[in-house]
Amino acid sequence: MNLSQLIGKPGVVVRHIERSAQATVEALAAHGVATVHEAQGRKGLLAPAIRPIQHNLAVGGSAVTVLVAPGDNWMFHVAVEQCRPGDVLVVAPSSPCEDGYFGDLLATSLKARGVRALITDTGVRDTRTLREMGFAVWSRAVYAQGTVKETLGSVNVPLLCGGQLVMPGDAIIADDDGVVVVRRTDADAVLAAADQRAANEEAKRQRMAAGELGLDIYAMRPRLAEKGLRYVDRLEDLEG
Amino acid sequence: MNLSQLIGKPGVVVRHIERSAQATVEALAAHGVATVHEAQGRKGLLAPAIRPIQHNLAVGGSAVTVLVAPGDNWMFHVAVEQCRPGDVLVVAPSSPCEDGYFGDLLATSLKARGVRALITDTGVRDTRTLREMGFAVWSRAVYAQGTVKETLGSVNVPLLCGGQLVMPGDAIIADDDGVVVVRRTDADAVLAAADQRAANEEAKRQRMAAGELGLDIYAMRPRLAEKGLRYVDRLEDLEG
Amino acid sequence: MNLSQLIGKPGVVVRHIERSAQATVEALAAHGVATVHEAQGRKGLLAPAIRPIQHNLAVGGSAVTVLVAPGDNWMFHVAVEQCRPGDVLVVAPSSPCEDGYFGDLLATSLKARGVRALITDTGVRDTRTLREMGFAVWSRAVYAQGTVKETLGSVNVPLLCGGQLVMPGDAIIADDDGVVVVRRTDADAVLAAADQRAANEEAKRQRMAAGELGLDIYAMRPRLAEKGLRYVDRLEDLEG
Amino acid sequence: MNLSQLIGKPGVVVRHIERSAQATVEALAAHGVATVHEAQGRKGLLAPAIRPIQHNLAVGGSAVTVLVAPGDNWMFHVAVEQCRPGDVLVVAPSSPCEDGYFGDLLATSLKARGVRALITDTGVRDTRTLREMGFAVWSRAVYAQGTVKETLGSVNVPLLCGGQLVMPGDAIIADDDGVVVVRRTDADAVLAAADQRAANEEAKRQRMAAGELGLDIYAMRPRLAEKGLRYVDRLEDLEG
Amino acid sequence: MNLSQLIGKPGVVVRHIERSAQATVEALAAHGVATVHEAQGRKGLLAPAIRPIQHNLAVGGSAVTVLVAPGDNWMFHVAVEQCRPGDVLVVAPSSPCEDGYFGDLLATSLKARGVRALITDTGVRDTRTLREMGFAVWSRAVYAQGTVKETLGSVNVPLLCGGQLVMPGDAIIADDDGVVVVRRTDADAVLAAADQRAANEEAKRQRMAAGELGLDIYAMRPRLAEKGLRYVDRLEDLEG
Amino acid sequence: MNLSQLIGKPGVVVRHIERSAQATVEALAAHGVATVHEAQGRKGLLAPAIRPIQHNLAVGGSAVTVLVAPGDNWMFHVAVEQCRPGDVLVVAPSSPCEDGYFGDLLATSLKARGVRALITDTGVRDTRTLREMGFAVWSRAVYAQGTVKETLGSVNVPLLCGGQLVMPGDAIIADDDGVVVVRRTDADAVLAAADQRAANEEAKRQRMAAGELGLDIYAMRPRLAEKGLRYVDRLEDLEG
Repeated sequence: MNLSQLIGKPGVVVRHIERSAQATVEALAAHGVATVHEAQGRKGLLAPAIRPIQHNLAVGGSAVTVLVAPGDNWMFHVAVEQCRPGDVLVVAPSSPCEDGYFGDLLATSLKARGVRALITDTGVRDTRTLREMGFAVWSRAVYAQGTVKETLGSVNVPLLCGGQLVMPGDAIIADDDGVVVVRRTDADAVLAAADQRAANEEAKRQRMAAGELGLDIYAMRPRLAEKGLRYVDRLEDLEG
Repeated sequence: MNLSQLIGKPGVVVRHIERSAQATVEALAAHGVATVHEAQGRKGLLAPAIRPIQHNLAVGGSAVTVLVAPGDNWMFHVAVEQCRPGDVLVVAPSSPCEDGYFGDLLATSLKARGVRALITDTGVRDTRTLREMGFAVWSRAVYAQGTVKETLGSVNVPLLCGGQLVMPGDAIIADDDGVVVVRRTDADAVLAAADQRAANEEAKRQRMAAGELGLDIYAMRPRLAEKGLRYVDRLEDLEG
Repeated sequence: MNLSQLIGKPGVVVRHIERSAQATVEALAAHGVATVHEAQGRKGLLAPAIRPIQHNLAVGGSAVTVLVAPGDNWMFHVAVEQCRPGDVLVVAPSSPCEDGYFGDLLATSLKARGVRALITDTGVRDTRTLREMGFAVWSRAVYAQGTVKETLGSVNVPLLCGGQLVMPGDAIIADDDGVVVVRRTDADAVLAAADQRAANEEAKRQRMAAGELGLDIYAMRPRLAEKGLRYVDRLEDLEG
Repeated sequence: MNLSQLIGKPGVVVRHIERSAQATVEALAAHGVATVHEAQGRKGLLAPAIRPIQHNLAVGGSAVTVLVAPGDNWMFHVAVEQCRPGDVLVVAPSSPCEDGYFGDLLATSLKARGVRALITDTGVRDTRTLREMGFAVWSRAVYAQGTVKETLGSVNVPLLCGGQLVMPGDAIIADDDGVVVVRRTDADAVLAAADQRAANEEAKRQRMAAGELGLDIYAMRPRLAEKGLRYVDRLEDLEG
Repeated sequence: MNLSQLIGKPGVVVRHIERSAQATVEALAAHGVATVHEAQGRKGLLAPAIRPIQHNLAVGGSAVTVLVAPGDNWMFHVAVEQCRPGDVLVVAPSSPCEDGYFGDLLATSLKARGVRALITDTGVRDTRTLREMGFAVWSRAVYAQGTVKETLGSVNVPLLCGGQLVMPGDAIIADDDGVVVVRRTDADAVLAAADQRAANEEAKRQRMAAGELGLDIYAMRPRLAEKGLRYVDRLEDLEG
Repeated sequence: MNLSQLIGKPGVVVRHIERSAQATVEALAAHGVATVHEAQGRKGLLAPAIRPIQHNLAVGGSAVTVLVAPGDNWMFHVAVEQCRPGDVLVVAPSSPCEDGYFGDLLATSLKARGVRALITDTGVRDTRTLREMGFAVWSRAVYAQGTVKETLGSVNVPLLCGGQLVMPGDAIIADDDGVVVVRRTDADAVLAAADQRAANEEAKRQRMAAGELGLDIYAMRPRLAEKGLRYVDRLEDLEG
């Protein structure tokens, strides 16, 4: 059985996973989702429908993945036991479902284990309490609809969440812009690229703040001219 | 004419309705939407597309129902007169419409009558002022599009709002998770069940906060094993 | 070439546009989107899917329009040079696209030019930083997906944004309710109508706050009766 | 327990229901959904998201209602036993779900009982075979996702389907325009009104086919003039 | 009053418009929407949410535009009188509305005037009968919800339909791919470009049908190589 | 570089892939999507938003995967060369895009190579001609919007299409219900399970067609009783 066959495999809990380095994910989180996404070659973004329930928070951690049956949150309890400080729970249903899989009780349990956030391709509830607790959540929906505990899923198998493959232990970065996944083995290289990009952007930012134009900073004018961009004085000049 | 024929009947204002007990709806609101929904057997949730325009607010009250024509908010004015302190206005259009039926002027009038909130399966506008006034709103949309005053609707007839039947006088609970309706005659029993559930959850919460696992608190391990949940050490163990 | 042929014309930058009077757009912004929309005869609202990334902010300015290719934000840099203090950038893609065209770097550049806000029928990113910078944004989506710089668009040609025609120099008003466009040449008349409407509403508001009913303030009762509105004491009266 | 408390009540099968008269529902079906909807005062339409999987088919029958748990089609089998020739199955999930609850096997069983159609606020599958079998279906989605048989629902309790209350035995009319529900006790009166409307329309149709204008047939010109409709010769006449 | 102020102006009927040449629109229709869209520089497409209710039909005609109030189809009757053989009715509501504005009766009237099709940014009904009559329709929705006749709109003013400006008399081309608008004064030039494109494509089609590759026909290989496209024998070659 | 890093890797063409056995995919196609999905344990379904442009067609083939840039169909031409008779093209954009990537010209080229179908997580155009040609297509949208040829993608790398991982050479089955992917190495086992399931269903179908109930065929009654299903004679029996 190879990786492509393990995706979404139900009925399994994997106890030991290689996690991303904590210092690395924290440094990536400080850069933010947009920068990390660029730094790894514009890939890894989860679907924009997965939105934060809080504002102005950036989080990074290692993925503990949870596959759940539609309308069934049993596996969350199984997953808690597999979590360590610095983890981020990444949850996907085996068929689309926006029920409220997760609320303040499970958040209490995860928080006690040091888990940093929940990323879920389902709905959540108790959102006010979750914000008060300071437990960070990105979800596809907010919906109070309850779930049952009847059907097995899995913990720490590869899964597809928000249209992206997430491997157990991958670095997950989430902020107000959404969520991005970075392969564990790529994390250091992506961080280096992000550092480089940020340093580069900071210099640009200072010049722009001083009023210099991107047209000049990036020397865009010749290429725009070459593509045929035409400047006219007034709209009427085009109407003639 | 029986109840099924009264739903959405236009052209009528019902002056006297039985309201839910104020103490009960307030106690239900303190529990929140998710708990109330569970306590009454996982029913009564309005569609999750009906969202609050404010954060961190929980409200309870007795429903004064308003049926409106598409793009026509005339009945809001008729409804104001029927409201009492502690009421919640519940509004549904006779055909889908996301126009901005409601703004700060009507909110001023409702607030003067002691109305606690608006739940509407339409759009609203003046949302910034509404938040500043502290008038709570849950709506399907925010849209400034104006409405007219040409066509009759009804006040205090049963109606379908967010895919749920709402009877005049029903208990309405709304918070950041959405909106739930409880039949007036069920409200006391639902409150008792919610109290019970909350007490039960509080004990669980403390154990979880102390690091105990749901797996153990709920004694889930034997049933998981019986269903065939398989623990492996590493992902590679599945690949062989 | 007439106006209908200039809409969305690519490859052109218009240097000089007639702007709306700054005092007028600021006065319109103080009225807010809903009032301005009413004052100009219920027209000019952009699609409600274009939402603010911040709360409790009202902005007005003159439109500098930017036509962009899908997934390509090159023209933003070209547009910056055409901006003056008090402008609002209004952006539309030539084919639907929700990529993150705009982030904190471009915001820095626009802010340095005195631009007040961005209205875009695309996605944006770096939303947390944008809020921290105090740069106001209304967009169709929040999505970190990056863009390229390969294809020409235009600056200051008429374009369709959020389903509305926007002419360069038009007055743009945006707040928590959305965005409305007012033709530059209509702006003074619309402001006069908005002033009138607001004064009228303020008198109504005070009477309503004192408990007077809209039914009486607007003398609605005779017309409601004429339309056949029927008052009954109890729901059961309809069931007989 | 009154009707409002019976809606969506789980765990119950009601064996005997009063059905709509077969001749009446067939006559209503011959009129079509739009006419029936008008004839009963523009109410009773299910949400337009519930679409036929086939073209050019109009069906009428008495509702046998089925409440199902999300992702669980067990109750379909329970429902089959309660069906008689001329029935239409009307299905709603207790929480939104677009899984493929229904396929050719259940259709075979329903067809053998003389059931005329399925109306479901869920997904269906085997759509090609269903069309080949001539079993008519209106559904919210087409999706092959399978369901389980774990959780009870109900048969022949009142339920909300497509945003409308459906009572067991109600007349259901469905065609290419969608689905409309008529209360069993209203069916004869609605048919009489539909007959009247159709006769009236037929006369109009012949006059229109002969080139007469609705403006004249309905004598609309005076009222249009009274409302202020202005005729001009050319667009330029407005531009002056 | 200039063109930008005439868009969506209510309360006006313009009697005389310049129409597109019939032979031209028919020739454009024969090319189809995709080709016409390309031939005029990839612009003019209405939103893809406006879909045909029939298959395998291509239609062209001159636009008679109709602005309607939400939920109000009065202006359709006014519009019929302004139509001539070869026209296409293009309809937009002043605020979004998916009600069933149009059915078989109005189609009978339009057909009697020689109108070729309806393009509407609203809902329609009687779709089965419309198909049987052979009256072509493209609409945003199919929904039987009825409308009233209370509020004025306009006929033959410029309007925004499906996110595009449509001028009275513009050439409208619609087929299974959707709808495209061509300015009346551009129609001949666009036809010439479409003829050229089609001739060019036909030659390509024959070479491709014979098995020749686009890579060779368009001489793409050098540019792909220049961009860095890398050919490998097997996936494993990338995994090393 | 392992498989998880190859997903969506740009700039690469893989020439040799292991294909699924032609006889196997054809036998799977004969079973249809719903049966195949069940036979492999209810997994592998692409998102239901990917819909056929034609009716009553079932197709099976080996996946040739194509990664494309948003709004850029260059890689289609590169892909054609890699196709063999019996292949199915599976296409995904690197960022969401519903432009019309594919039309009759590319279909001509693919047909000449013996390709059986296109599955694309984008838009397509020329749909009428595609149906006339008998070239089968499943797509997320129908939209005539043209694309460019500027940016590299890949051919025959693993990719995510419709929320599922597709490996080059995987078996793809598509019919009116949607699309399912089966790993190449699972295809024989899934076919055996599908054969078994179909045989089993056929026996059930005959008993059902003869009027026997699923309740009895599957011996459901005891378990329903155990779960507490309650039969009552009339609705009124519940109201007491």
